[in-house]
Amino acid sequence: MKKIINDPTTVVEEALHGMAEAHRDLITVQFEPAFIARADAPVTGKVALVSGGGSGHEPLHGGFVGAGMLDAAVPGAVFTSPTPDQILDATKAVDGGAGVLHIVKNYTGDVLNFETAAELAAAEDIEVSAVVIDDDVAVKDSTWTAGRRGVGGTVLVEKIAGAAAARGDDLAAVTAIAQRVNAQVRSMGMALTPCTVPHSGEPSFTLAEDEMEIGIGIHGEPGRERVKLAPADEIVATLLGSIVEDLPFEAGDNTLLFVNGMGGTPQIELYLAYHSASKYLKDKGIEVTRSLVGNYITSLEMQGMSITLLKLDDEFTQLWDAPVHTAALRWGV
Amino acid sequence: MKKIINDPTTVVEEALHGMAEAHRDLITVQFEPAFIARADAPVTGKVALVSGGGSGHEPLHGGFVGAGMLDAAVPGAVFTSPTPDQILDATKAVDGGAGVLHIVKNYTGDVLNFETAAELAAAEDIEVSAVVIDDDVAVKDSTWTAGRRGVGGTVLVEKIAGAAAARGDDLAAVTAIAQRVNAQVRSMGMALTPCTVPHSGEPSFTLAEDEMEIGIGIHGEPGRERVKLAPADEIVATLLGSIVEDLPFEAGDNTLLFVNGMGGTPQIELYLAYHSASKYLKDKGIEVTRSLVGNYITSLEMQGMSITLLKLDDEFTQLWDAPVHTAALRWGV
Repeated sequence: MKKIINDPTTVVEEALHGMAEAHRDLITVQFEPAFIARADAPVTGKVALVSGGGSGHEPLHGGFVGAGMLDAAVPGAVFTSPTPDQILDATKAVDGGAGVLHIVKNYTGDVLNFETAAELAAAEDIEVSAVVIDDDVAVKDSTWTAGRRGVGGTVLVEKIAGAAAARGDDLAAVTAIAQRVNAQVRSMGMALTPCTVPHSGEPSFTLAEDEMEIGIGIHGEPGRERVKLAPADEIVATLLGSIVEDLPFEAGDNTLLFVNGMGGTPQIELYLAYHSASKYLKDKGIEVTRSLVGNYITSLEMQGMSITLLKLDDEFTQLWDAPVHTAALRWGV
Repeated sequence: MKKIINDPTTVVEEALHGMAEAHRDLITVQFEPAFIARADAPVTGKVALVSGGGSGHEPLHGGFVGAGMLDAAVPGAVFTSPTPDQILDATKAVDGGAGVLHIVKNYTGDVLNFETAAELAAAEDIEVSAVVIDDDVAVKDSTWTAGRRGVGGTVLVEKIAGAAAARGDDLAAVTAIAQRVNAQVRSMGMALTPCTVPHSGEPSFTLAEDEMEIGIGIHGEPGRERVKLAPADEIVATLLGSIVEDLPFEAGDNTLLFVNGMGGTPQIELYLAYHSASKYLKDKGIEVTRSLVGNYITSLEMQGMSITLLKLDDEFTQLWDAPVHTAALRWGV
């Protein structure tokens, strides 16, 4: 295992210290239990957004804490759900009196622990609602999931719902926006290489030198099929074909196209894949008016990518464009 | 070779199409010869900044084209200098009548080709000055260099000189700022794994499973020494020890700390290394008031990192904080 670490058991904690030091103006990090919160939390009268999940997907979620996006992020151990007490403490820390929205990726442990935390928060008179993200079209159920997995769409939900909260929407309205984004977004990923969880020291799976995994999950869990390597245009057609057919997206639709790196893929390949996707969608008459390209929801050092497509309406576009100030996404401020 | 590409010979061209499509509001891309320019270039009366070099280091340089940073970027083939005609065309396209600064990383081919382009531009009555970046303390001369190599400091020069041009400094003043940043910045890198140039199909070097290369160049060219893997704190102490001693940086200095990923390193490791660096500098009494963490000058999918330290003064800090709107760095706008 080749990693820039000191000790496999302290990776998350040390990285959180680094985040806190690098972004002192933006965030504070609590330990025991661990969570990342906006430096100015709680924001009185604003609906607060809390997300979280296993570490190893950075910048998700801690990189999205700040004005216009998340109020807190709760990191578990690598690829491991955060505990209810972490989620509860984060929820209490950022509640500004207008209620808290939990944004939960659909993995069994995450869903259960966020539910438990929400019940505990309710017992302390904090109003909590939740949206479960399940945008991955690759598989119906998976190793770690009943139903579809939550992947790249999560980033878009966090940005758009965060902007709705920032403009003053109440908890019901912010929750409805988050649910509406989740209903209009679809994703699918693929991997060229596995990744290695520091604690285990072994790759999560193996792929031959001429193989790739289509429909991979963000923990390296199996996807749809293991196939021979193919050109970028074919890979993109496979991913986008499944995505477009699923919603379905149709000619004339206005979309946001998000090409996401899995952590170990160079940017030159992501832009090349963006070009493939752009050609594919143009052929179908689907318009792209907003874009995101880069490593935003990753699987440690895995090489591969996911594609996410969101059907835009005027409100989504306006909320996407609204100012955001986080470590990983920033504009307008 | 596992890559998301269609054809090793068209990687750069296809990725440039993807960049142009993803950032239509920000940049335009020309082909034959290839360069990336600000969508609103030329900006009349403003000193224009042009940089460039081999592809494979993305987001450097194309990701830094936009308001407050570069006016144009000239991409060569992967790890290959751009040609004089590319540089000349970019220079002519963005000259707004106030002259053009060439920001050149110190590699023999780059230096020669930028010099030739500058002479050709001068023959067309465009005033050109140049700054050669040589911030890498790892080796005195290298495979591809007489003198030190230009690495992570280039990003900081482009940002700070770009802000000076945006505020209306003339060519001599912008050039002087760029030279002053280069004089105050030092870098050093390391690699855990090699990278593979698409055209060659073979890794640029090999490292055993328990080895790393200290002082690596951004093309995988040899550094100071090949040693056994070590904990992050030791790696950081080796890099920062050489950096701090070289300038030298001293107790009480105010600095910008830049922890850069080589392309294949997960963000969790970069923040962990940032924490190591933060501890190291605190011990020496060196203050960090500005930070940058992420993949900004890369070597395709190489795993590893570089550390860059810039001694800040009030003017550098002000110019660093000034608004910037590019694909890879954006704030204040």
